[in-house]
Amino acid sequence: MSAPTATSYSQVQFTFGLWTVGWSAQDPFGDATRAPIDPVDSVHRLAELGASGVTFHDDDLVPPGASASERDAVIGRFRAALDETGLTVPMVTTNTFTHPVFKDGALTSNDRGVRRLALRKVLRQVELGAELGARTFVMWGGREGMEYDGAKDHRAALDRFAEGLDSVAGFIKDRGYDMRIALEPKPNEPRGDILLPTVGHALGFIAQLEHGDIVGLNPEVGHEQMAGLNFTAGIAQALWSGKLFHIDLNGQHGPKFDQDLVFGHGDLMSAFFTVDLLENGFPSGGPRYEGPRHFDYKPSRTEDLEGVWVSAAANMETYLLLAERARAFRADPEVQEAMRASGIEELAVPTLAEGESAASLLQAEGDLGLEIAAESDRLAPRGYGHVRLNQLALRHVLGAA
Amino acid sequence: MSAPTATSYSQVQFTFGLWTVGWSAQDPFGDATRAPIDPVDSVHRLAELGASGVTFHDDDLVPPGASASERDAVIGRFRAALDETGLTVPMVTTNTFTHPVFKDGALTSNDRGVRRLALRKVLRQVELGAELGARTFVMWGGREGMEYDGAKDHRAALDRFAEGLDSVAGFIKDRGYDMRIALEPKPNEPRGDILLPTVGHALGFIAQLEHGDIVGLNPEVGHEQMAGLNFTAGIAQALWSGKLFHIDLNGQHGPKFDQDLVFGHGDLMSAFFTVDLLENGFPSGGPRYEGPRHFDYKPSRTEDLEGVWVSAAANMETYLLLAERARAFRADPEVQEAMRASGIEELAVPTLAEGESAASLLQAEGDLGLEIAAESDRLAPRGYGHVRLNQLALRHVLGAA
Amino acid sequence: MSAPTATSYSQVQFTFGLWTVGWSAQDPFGDATRAPIDPVDSVHRLAELGASGVTFHDDDLVPPGASASERDAVIGRFRAALDETGLTVPMVTTNTFTHPVFKDGALTSNDRGVRRLALRKVLRQVELGAELGARTFVMWGGREGMEYDGAKDHRAALDRFAEGLDSVAGFIKDRGYDMRIALEPKPNEPRGDILLPTVGHALGFIAQLEHGDIVGLNPEVGHEQMAGLNFTAGIAQALWSGKLFHIDLNGQHGPKFDQDLVFGHGDLMSAFFTVDLLENGFPSGGPRYEGPRHFDYKPSRTEDLEGVWVSAAANMETYLLLAERARAFRADPEVQEAMRASGIEELAVPTLAEGESAASLLQAEGDLGLEIAAESDRLAPRGYGHVRLNQLALRHVLGAA
Amino acid sequence: MSAPTATSYSQVQFTFGLWTVGWSAQDPFGDATRAPIDPVDSVHRLAELGASGVTFHDDDLVPPGASASERDAVIGRFRAALDETGLTVPMVTTNTFTHPVFKDGALTSNDRGVRRLALRKVLRQVELGAELGARTFVMWGGREGMEYDGAKDHRAALDRFAEGLDSVAGFIKDRGYDMRIALEPKPNEPRGDILLPTVGHALGFIAQLEHGDIVGLNPEVGHEQMAGLNFTAGIAQALWSGKLFHIDLNGQHGPKFDQDLVFGHGDLMSAFFTVDLLENGFPSGGPRYEGPRHFDYKPSRTEDLEGVWVSAAANMETYLLLAERARAFRADPEVQEAMRASGIEELAVPTLAEGESAASLLQAEGDLGLEIAAESDRLAPRGYGHVRLNQLALRHVLGAA
Repeated sequence: MSAPTATSYSQVQFTFGLWTVGWSAQDPFGDATRAPIDPVDSVHRLAELGASGVTFHDDDLVPPGASASERDAVIGRFRAALDETGLTVPMVTTNTFTHPVFKDGALTSNDRGVRRLALRKVLRQVELGAELGARTFVMWGGREGMEYDGAKDHRAALDRFAEGLDSVAGFIKDRGYDMRIALEPKPNEPRGDILLPTVGHALGFIAQLEHGDIVGLNPEVGHEQMAGLNFTAGIAQALWSGKLFHIDLNGQHGPKFDQDLVFGHGDLMSAFFTVDLLENGFPSGGPRYEGPRHFDYKPSRTEDLEGVWVSAAANMETYLLLAERARAFRADPEVQEAMRASGIEELAVPTLAEGESAASLLQAEGDLGLEIAAESDRLAPRGYGHVRLNQLALRHVLGAA
Repeated sequence: MSAPTATSYSQVQFTFGLWTVGWSAQDPFGDATRAPIDPVDSVHRLAELGASGVTFHDDDLVPPGASASERDAVIGRFRAALDETGLTVPMVTTNTFTHPVFKDGALTSNDRGVRRLALRKVLRQVELGAELGARTFVMWGGREGMEYDGAKDHRAALDRFAEGLDSVAGFIKDRGYDMRIALEPKPNEPRGDILLPTVGHALGFIAQLEHGDIVGLNPEVGHEQMAGLNFTAGIAQALWSGKLFHIDLNGQHGPKFDQDLVFGHGDLMSAFFTVDLLENGFPSGGPRYEGPRHFDYKPSRTEDLEGVWVSAAANMETYLLLAERARAFRADPEVQEAMRASGIEELAVPTLAEGESAASLLQAEGDLGLEIAAESDRLAPRGYGHVRLNQLALRHVLGAA
Repeated sequence: MSAPTATSYSQVQFTFGLWTVGWSAQDPFGDATRAPIDPVDSVHRLAELGASGVTFHDDDLVPPGASASERDAVIGRFRAALDETGLTVPMVTTNTFTHPVFKDGALTSNDRGVRRLALRKVLRQVELGAELGARTFVMWGGREGMEYDGAKDHRAALDRFAEGLDSVAGFIKDRGYDMRIALEPKPNEPRGDILLPTVGHALGFIAQLEHGDIVGLNPEVGHEQMAGLNFTAGIAQALWSGKLFHIDLNGQHGPKFDQDLVFGHGDLMSAFFTVDLLENGFPSGGPRYEGPRHFDYKPSRTEDLEGVWVSAAANMETYLLLAERARAFRADPEVQEAMRASGIEELAVPTLAEGESAASLLQAEGDLGLEIAAESDRLAPRGYGHVRLNQLALRHVLGAA
Repeated sequence: MSAPTATSYSQVQFTFGLWTVGWSAQDPFGDATRAPIDPVDSVHRLAELGASGVTFHDDDLVPPGASASERDAVIGRFRAALDETGLTVPMVTTNTFTHPVFKDGALTSNDRGVRRLALRKVLRQVELGAELGARTFVMWGGREGMEYDGAKDHRAALDRFAEGLDSVAGFIKDRGYDMRIALEPKPNEPRGDILLPTVGHALGFIAQLEHGDIVGLNPEVGHEQMAGLNFTAGIAQALWSGKLFHIDLNGQHGPKFDQDLVFGHGDLMSAFFTVDLLENGFPSGGPRYEGPRHFDYKPSRTEDLEGVWVSAAANMETYLLLAERARAFRADPEVQEAMRASGIEELAVPTLAEGESAASLLQAEGDLGLEIAAESDRLAPRGYGHVRLNQLALRHVLGAA
């Protein structure tokens, strides 16, 4: 398979976590199948493949327990690789899940000592992120949760989570960093149930924060799909709320363990509509996502090192192919006509007329009950043509339009 | 099976939807197996069984297409039954899903005429609810959704949903009604994907409303469990956000069609912890749910009329049995000790000390990296005893403690 | 959308259930949105669209309660339509789920009278099917199941199911009909749990039958996917067992209510591999599916009559587009090389050599434990290139290869 | 929590995998939280807690790469512990999933060398099992599967799986061992889709084997529930097919990652009915499960060593408590009456009368269509009382009957 050429990626900003290509493929039932990759090598290789940036957890780059001087050396070498390749670090995040100390959570561990430790670890990575120019700080609370309902005082857990988030956000503001926090929801795994299990729960939670203005979301395709939820609808609500700060693209086959497949290797039609939203925006305009297209996937455990890079390229190739098809879809006159017929445009028209009130709408000329019944019967027959519109989309996806 | 006596229910307010016992048991593959029940009969029978109130959709009580005088007669007869039995109507709701006109949604139909019709239907039921003293107005947007991502402009759909909600909430305020709106989330069915699929999405949405202060939630056990989510955690977040305005209790076996089983006939341990939260509150205190325990279930299609009433009683019996066990659980000294050992109380202690800032927490006495590593190793060995605590709960559930 | 021309369908035999296009779109929360369609009209319209046959439940064609003469008239008119259009009836089935009498099952109802009634209804349809030349008799036991584990004696239920199946199969043999039975598994809906929930359970059950030689399977895409199972793998096992007698193609989005979407409107990559197996067979050859490509889907409830026919055509169009891509995929030299590299061909080579026994394989030249350890380490590094192969498939699906 | 006394377990044979209590709690996102436990210590501790036997994978006992003499020493020490405690080894199994060599499968790896290696590893453990008196040999094909449909030739994979199984079964027969094979199905994890994903698929597969007479099943609670399937119904079909050779008890919360919770800590009502079937058999009699009650669970990662033993004891305690309740449930006259009313006994009566044929049943006295319609209406009104029966079960589960 000839790797797509780097030039074809010039218009879209693709980024990868160091932990994605660098995953050594250990799983709950099996040992590692690949050797670790030096982050500097990943930087060079991803640059060659056409990526524009990398992201990382603190421990992905600097081994836990490294001394200050070791850390400086690691970071210096990493910076040099960035400089050589031109890659940026638009996002960083903290590992508050691997070490056994976080087994009952980090910012919401029942142990206050652990919470304080976790907060320090997070704040420290905020500083490194700021140094490297990261404008997004992702927080995935993978260990914030429980296996049993009785294992947490849920109110206290949410209080502590809010305290932790506000502490970090306040710190960012105090330091004057140009950085926003993006929460990454997930329904379960590694905990039986995780706090803030979906995009929605995180949006609701942010609304309660003191510093919620700089806290938004980093939704991940597979995480929403693990709860059987529609990913495109999820990021649409985040966008609508002004909170789509970052995005994690990958693939998943519905409710099961977290698969982290290549983007498009799960639900392909859903991937198409996600790309359509990211590239073309809502049909009626409005907020757009402007950040990087970040892949948070895992090269399958069956793959060797060459397969790792093939899989990395596959993410970008799929995205670009879907982007092309999404542009053609929107530009197709038959599609435009079908969208009108489906009432897509009509939905953007306010329900009430200018100046009309609910009270005035309610008024009936005759018997209100009879009016409603008659109007219901009058409007019911309309067909919406949603299947036709979806078939047109499918044709475009298949390159058959 | 001797029905539990009415007196045993004196301390808990149980309510039922007229549509629950009144369901004639038609399903997607089968015709009705039971005759409709006269709502007046349901009122009498539920009163005998120990319920304190009933709730209804407009069309449950007044047949669609009834004239004003027919409607008045129906309502008059219904009020008389309420007066005779002492039952109240603490909640009402609108049917914006049965009539074919709502096939593409009600407040978010792509057809503006449908949206206006839906809004009138809702407002009219608000007025009836106010007349009958209902203080909660439930809105389940079961048809607000799509089967295909392209069938909706998601931004426009959320705009229209917000417009609709704010119109109703503004109307309630303008009229001076002592009434709050409770949104009922559901992930899917009857639509492929429903807008505001979970408690979380509804919380996030409410935060964007103009009149969100009188809009909260009516979470349903089975609806959250259809997405594989933890119901107790869901209502905990709603409570924490000050938004648990009403509750729908029933049973479900995970991600599949909406089963609407008797409460406790799905996940029994989860039902126990839900009752524990409703009856005993969070371990650390804080917001409590004070509303009715409302059952939104369906008597199985295999049951005859007698089975309907047996199933209604079963909901209340299960709740009361679990409430007894939850009280004993909290009062058990061994449980209290186990909760302490699990760190349940410790989680209520703020992570930062009084006056402590994130910046001061971050400061290290020596090499920060080494400090974090050492502290991680020091704190890691603690066991949390969550399994023991859950086994103690299980013993209480089994009546074996 | 211009409907694909009939001529393009000449090589594949497409069939539709009368109940698919004829569904009037009533769902658990809503009334019918479309008028019933005269089966004769469906025959004509499907013929125009390029279908080669229709299938039906007894009650789809002859209204329940029709007298013998009414029935004859209906069938006569239907036969005339078949004759005019050249459409065949390769399969029929019985409705043992709509009437309330089947609420606790048909062949496994706890009521013996119901079981006897169901058996008569089935046998009668066998006769009609034979008259019309149907060579497959599908049996979907949608009501054979329970909501509660205690509601059935499972052993008795399986005994009765086997008795019923063997009675029908024995009857077919006694009558000398050229007809085979195809069981259609489904995990749940309308029952909480259905007997024989998956392709696997049906295969295991058939192995216990007296007349299992003429009993096989009719797997449905969505039914397996409702259990999160891989449909292609399921039909592969059925084929391998010599039991893929018929197939129901449609679309589904994972574990939720039965969506019955257009084929390909659910998991598109899975649909591709299903078509690849049906059209191209296993890479190593072996049993092929030779029957009709039968669509068991529902035109979405949002659609009007025109939308019904658009959706019917969409099933065939998607199948044909995927078939083209599957042929190109298999013919692509890069794919062939990638399949070899993945070891696809190597898997067809027996593990033991000709004449080699397990005992001889076990023998070690030295220390067996050390031999196994060394051999494990020696063979472990191989990469399988599965991601690359899947990306090549994705390119073909997207028409980008 | 006082551990239940050993004497109370005298009537039920409880066994544990060494890998259960010995799990060091590494998960896909976290490092081990507990030190490994010496298998000899586990034997002693489990004996004290009341278990009657232990089971193990080859690598649980003998470290991979151990020389023959090291192996002998390990086994000798283990045998001594068995002798001291009186514990037996009723089952053994092979680890064909942890080493990277098995990343694409063991008996169905695309690499023939890996298949041969896997077969040797399995055969060797058969011999050790036979030496230790194990009468059941469990085979969990956790790596036999794929992430992508194109990664396997499914026919070849099933051929190789059958070849492997028949090789092992033939070897057992040739050696004259008193041992049977029990397949353990699982739908996914660690592979995206696993071959033989459910009890049903394994039953269907066994029917195709040459030596299927000594091949049966080892169903695991959580594995069936990961596909949303009813576990009790699954083992009932296995029993009915004469194939329930072994059982793995644990807990799970529906479709998500494999949780391996303590038995009863997932779906408690389902656990009750499972115990009811294991302890009391089918209501109509028939095949019984006579093997050990084997727990295949994981002590939660939050627990320390003490928590490990508490969790082990919890499995047995829950089983015994449910067994008590199941006995009382069956003995309760009200339950017996409710079972009769539900038609539980009636289902055991054959549908056809002695000597009656399908053909004779079909004959009508008048117009068959009218007869069927009339009989349907006559039989439809019966209520089955399934909800009442389930509520009686729930009362017994709650210790409230």
